[in-house]
This record gives sequence, structure tokens and C-alpha cells, in this order.
Amino acid sequence: MVQVIVVYSGGMDSYTLINKAIQEGHEVQAISFDYGQKHKKELLFAKNFCEISRIEHEIVDITSIKNLLKGSALTDDIAIPQGGYADNSMKLTIVPNRNMILISMAIGYAVSSNANEVWFGAHSGDHVIYPDCRPEFVEKMNALSLISDYQPISVKAPFIDLSKSEILSKGVEMNLDYSKTWTCYEGKDLACGLCGSCNERLEAFRENNLDDPLEYYVSS
Amino acid sequence: MVQVIVVYSGGMDSYTLINKAIQEGHEVQAISFDYGQKHKKELLFAKNFCEISRIEHEIVDITSIKNLLKGSALTDDIAIPQGGYADNSMKLTIVPNRNMILISMAIGYAVSSNANEVWFGAHSGDHVIYPDCRPEFVEKMNALSLISDYQPISVKAPFIDLSKSEILSKGVEMNLDYSKTWTCYEGKDLACGLCGSCNERLEAFRENNLDDPLEYYVSS
Repeated sequence: MVQVIVVYSGGMDSYTLINKAIQEGHEVQAISFDYGQKHKKELLFAKNFCEISRIEHEIVDITSIKNLLKGSALTDDIAIPQGGYADNSMKLTIVPNRNMILISMAIGYAVSSNANEVWFGAHSGDHVIYPDCRPEFVEKMNALSLISDYQPISVKAPFIDLSKSEILSKGVEMNLDYSKTWTCYEGKDLACGLCGSCNERLEAFRENNLDDPLEYYVSS
Repeated sequence: MVQVIVVYSGGMDSYTLINKAIQEGHEVQAISFDYGQKHKKELLFAKNFCEISRIEHEIVDITSIKNLLKGSALTDDIAIPQGGYADNSMKLTIVPNRNMILISMAIGYAVSSNANEVWFGAHSGDHVIYPDCRPEFVEKMNALSLISDYQPISVKAPFIDLSKSEILSKGVEMNLDYSKTWTCYEGKDLACGLCGSCNERLEAFRENNLDDPLEYYVSS
């Protein structure tokens, strides 16, 4: 049996991913990170799902690294940019080297748990803005992970070639309930409906002719 | 001017490394990590040197990851093995995926600080036991680091081909004072003189016909 650690943010992509791992019959553990993101509300969504599904779940507090990683609207006192997910302004949401940091910890957890693989939810919509979500990143992260410990851990991003709309489509086939996910970068009571992350989510629902079960402050 | 982040544990190798970076005229910042090691005393040595040398220094508390990374004598309730540094028993001192985790944070810090390079002090004596100190690890870590952020950060291990004895020899040429370093894995008042780490250090001093300025509980 393949034992998989899923890096689970609480958003749509990683929610679909963890369900894919479960439905494929793998032994699944989840890991989430509090890195000081304004939308740490997403972690509650991850926690709730893991509790209901009886998935072993670690939420790791690495807020101490906030001092090191400056300049992101996701963690610093900088307004979250509004607009399209691929707009240049979305570069403000980059947290320096975030995915390498999170995945390296997930790999350590995998070694410690005798797991075989680490999965994370990068998708094709991420490629424009986030270098650490591109196929080249996954390939090199995997190459590194296979030789860094005595136990080789594979790093996989099964949705790397899919758009958010295609991921949603897969999730609907899997009967998933997207009210159990959080996407908005603002992390307020309702989703803002204006940030790049909300816009990409809303577009995915429109393209699938579905209504998003979440409530929004501004619905487009 | 090259701006370098040195991963600085407080031990001999990284102490020599940070001095090499300074003497070569680079702009230097240091980063150290509290990952729950028993010998966190090493961090005080790093802190003191940086204060005296007016080097910007971040000590990052990542003790929260101790729960993830189990099974190491450096962090868990397991006796530190005694004997040679290359003895098989020293595998007990491996912290799962440690160097990838620490270096990934140093890279994030480098991006955030507009630095160009991350240096760490792996040496040839580490290769036998620690996969994340081998040339292949450095090469793949560097390849990953160059594409993970918009700003390419090089990862270098300038002492990767040197033994501890050769590093000490270099440091002596550089007029370094090794009383400003801590090596023992036990982290008690005096160095134990029995763990693999002490034994490798003591051997380096013997090979250089020098007395170690540190005091030991047991001197061989």
C-alpha cells in the first residue's frame, strides 16, 4: 500500500487532491501550515474535513518564519491585490520560497512516518505567477527528495496540468462538497469575491455551470 | 558585491565558513535554527560571534516541527551514540530531512533580503552518515533553488570536499579562535569527549598538532 502525505491547505485543489488519494485507496495523512497567512481560516476547513474523515492531520505552526519572509500581501501589512489570478499584480501574493519550505517539512514528516510520497495541489493556473508551482519545480523537488534521506520520498503534483475548472470538474464527478473548502486570500467571514484567488474559483464554477456553495461579499 | 546568507550552527565548520565569507569581502548575514536540538548551546556561540562581528543574525525557532521529525538522538529521548563520526550508530543522529528544511528557509530569507547565495558547512566527513551533506544533495538543492523564485539563489557548500582536519587547518591560517565554537552533541557544560561529533573534532586537532581550546569531561 502506498502511504501518502498530502500538503493540505484547506482550499479547493488540495481538498480535491486529498479525496483523490483517499478514493484511490492510499493510506493518507495530511499536513497543513500556519505560516502567518491572513487567510488562516483555510486551516479550519482542513481540520474539519480531517476530523470527519478520521485522517491523521498535523497543523504545523511556523509563524516564526514570518520575520524571514517579507514582502507578501498574504502575510504582511500590504493590501491583497484584486483582479485576475494571472494578473501581474498577483506577484504581490508570493511568499518567498514558500512551497520548498512547506514541502521540505512534509518530506521530513514522510520519512519520520515511513510514508512513500508527498502530494501537493499545484495546478496549471498557478504557473503564470508562482515559480514554485511549475512542472520544473516539481521535477527538481522530486529529484532532490529522492536522495536527501535514506528512504526515498517521491514528490508529486497530480493536478499540475489541470486548470482549476478541470479540478472542480473532477471533484464533482467524485461527489465532493466544495462548501468544505476556503479559497479567499482575505480570510474574512465571507469570501471577498474580488481577489485573484476568489476570481479564479468563481470562474471555475461558471465554466462548470455550477453555483459556488460559498457566500461572497461581492458576487460577480 | 555578492550578498551571502550563511547557515551558521555555531560549530567549527560553519564558523570557519562565515569567516571565509567575511574575509572574502562578501556582504554576510547569518541564519541559525532552534529545531529542538539537545545541543542548542551551539546557538549561543553563533549569537556571540555575530554580535561581536556585527553580522545581521536571525535565530529561527522551529521547535514546532519536532513533532513531525521523530527518531533522532539529537532531538528525542534517545541516548547520543558514542564512538567514531562515521560509525553506523551515528545514523541515530539523523534528523529527517533536516538540511533541506533549514536551507529552504535560508533561501526564502535570501530572496527576502535580495541576497545572491546561501552557503552551508557540509564537509567530506559528513558524507558517510548524512545523505543531506553529500555533493549530490548540494547539486540538486542548487538546481532547485535556481528556479524556485524569480530571484535565482545559488546554494553552495564550499567545504564539501574538505575533511574537518583540513577545515581546521584553513581556519588556523585565517587566525580563527576555535574557543568560539561548539561541537558536542550532548550540549552540557563541558564537551563530552565521547560522542561522534567530539571525536571527529578532537581528531582534527590532533592531526593539526594543536590543542583544542575547549574543555572536555573526558579527554582522549
